[in-house]
Amino acid sequence: MASTTEKPTDPEFRSEPPPAAPASIVDFFQADIALRFLLFASSLVAIVVIVTSQQTDEASHKLVEFKDSPAFIYFVTAFSVTGLYSILTALASISVLPRPDLKLKFLLHFIFWDTLILGIVASATGAAGGVSYLALKGNDHLNWNEVCNVYDKFCRYLAGSLASALFGSVVAVLLLWLSATSIHSRIPK
Amino acid sequence: MASTTEKPTDPEFRSEPPPAAPASIVDFFQADIALRFLLFASSLVAIVVIVTSQQTDEASHKLVEFKDSPAFIYFVTAFSVTGLYSILTALASISVLPRPDLKLKFLLHFIFWDTLILGIVASATGAAGGVSYLALKGNDHLNWNEVCNVYDKFCRYLAGSLASALFGSVVAVLLLWLSATSIHSRIPK
Repeated sequence: MASTTEKPTDPEFRSEPPPAAPASIVDFFQADIALRFLLFASSLVAIVVIVTSQQTDEASHKLVEFKDSPAFIYFVTAFSVTGLYSILTALASISVLPRPDLKLKFLLHFIFWDTLILGIVASATGAAGGVSYLALKGNDHLNWNEVCNVYDKFCRYLAGSLASALFGSVVAVLLLWLSATSIHSRIPK
Repeated sequence: MASTTEKPTDPEFRSEPPPAAPASIVDFFQADIALRFLLFASSLVAIVVIVTSQQTDEASHKLVEFKDSPAFIYFVTAFSVTGLYSILTALASISVLPRPDLKLKFLLHFIFWDTLILGIVASATGAAGGVSYLALKGNDHLNWNEVCNVYDKFCRYLAGSLASALFGSVVAVLLLWLSATSIHSRIPK
């Protein structure tokens, strides 16, 4: 409610509890916003690349696309949610920049939701990675043949999408670390 | 800096920074210890069940076991790390119970490492889940036949292990939420 950076000469303003170290908190929030945009960008790239990965085998005229595997459908759904979430929370972070009194409340909410997003992103990357590895190598024990020798473009696009997804997972981890450091910095020593 | 709720008559006590709300922090740590033991138990169950899942097909005399798939090897590795981590941090949590001055430092470290563990656990559950789903349903588009009709015991064990892993992932999320709430509760209002 009351920022103490303005009107320091007013005695009524100074009697209220001042926000702890506003300068460093602003820095944390700027990094937070940058990371959220990075998460949005990597989600977008992961989705666009996997959605455009369809390929038709010229010999059998069979089409493969991401919709053929539930793991890839989960992957696209998860990163759609993550992309939407990251852009919304980036806007929320921007909107809270001039309001230091609200930042603490936002931080705690961010940690709660970022935790869920990390779980979603990591599990989606794992599921798509597991199935992609099967496409690349096959599995002799279970009689699953590799498909990347036929559908080379499909597999290259999968690899690109997974790389972007892995990058997004790292960004989600960094977001949580940043929030934890930020909230920790507000505790008086 | 100085909370005035304790010993307001002693001037020397008021000059030192007292631990903020020690009673509630102890409660947080007790819940933290309980959650870490739950995470250890679920990791142990997930590993034991998937390791004992091997089955020989009576018709073809072919053996399947978790080692046949890299996704399941990653799953076992990830939950071994998680089990070891959770028992070590549970002991650390117990050791810090009588030292309120160290709790804040521990909390921040816990958040950092718990974030990584959540990422590992969620991705391992996703990878194993993706491959298990293929074993259950197969994939017509990629010519991967289902194997659970032949290896029914293998698949039942996989499902049990995955259920325990999913429970462990939820516990990892709860651990992060608890630490965030705990660290947040130490910030003076």
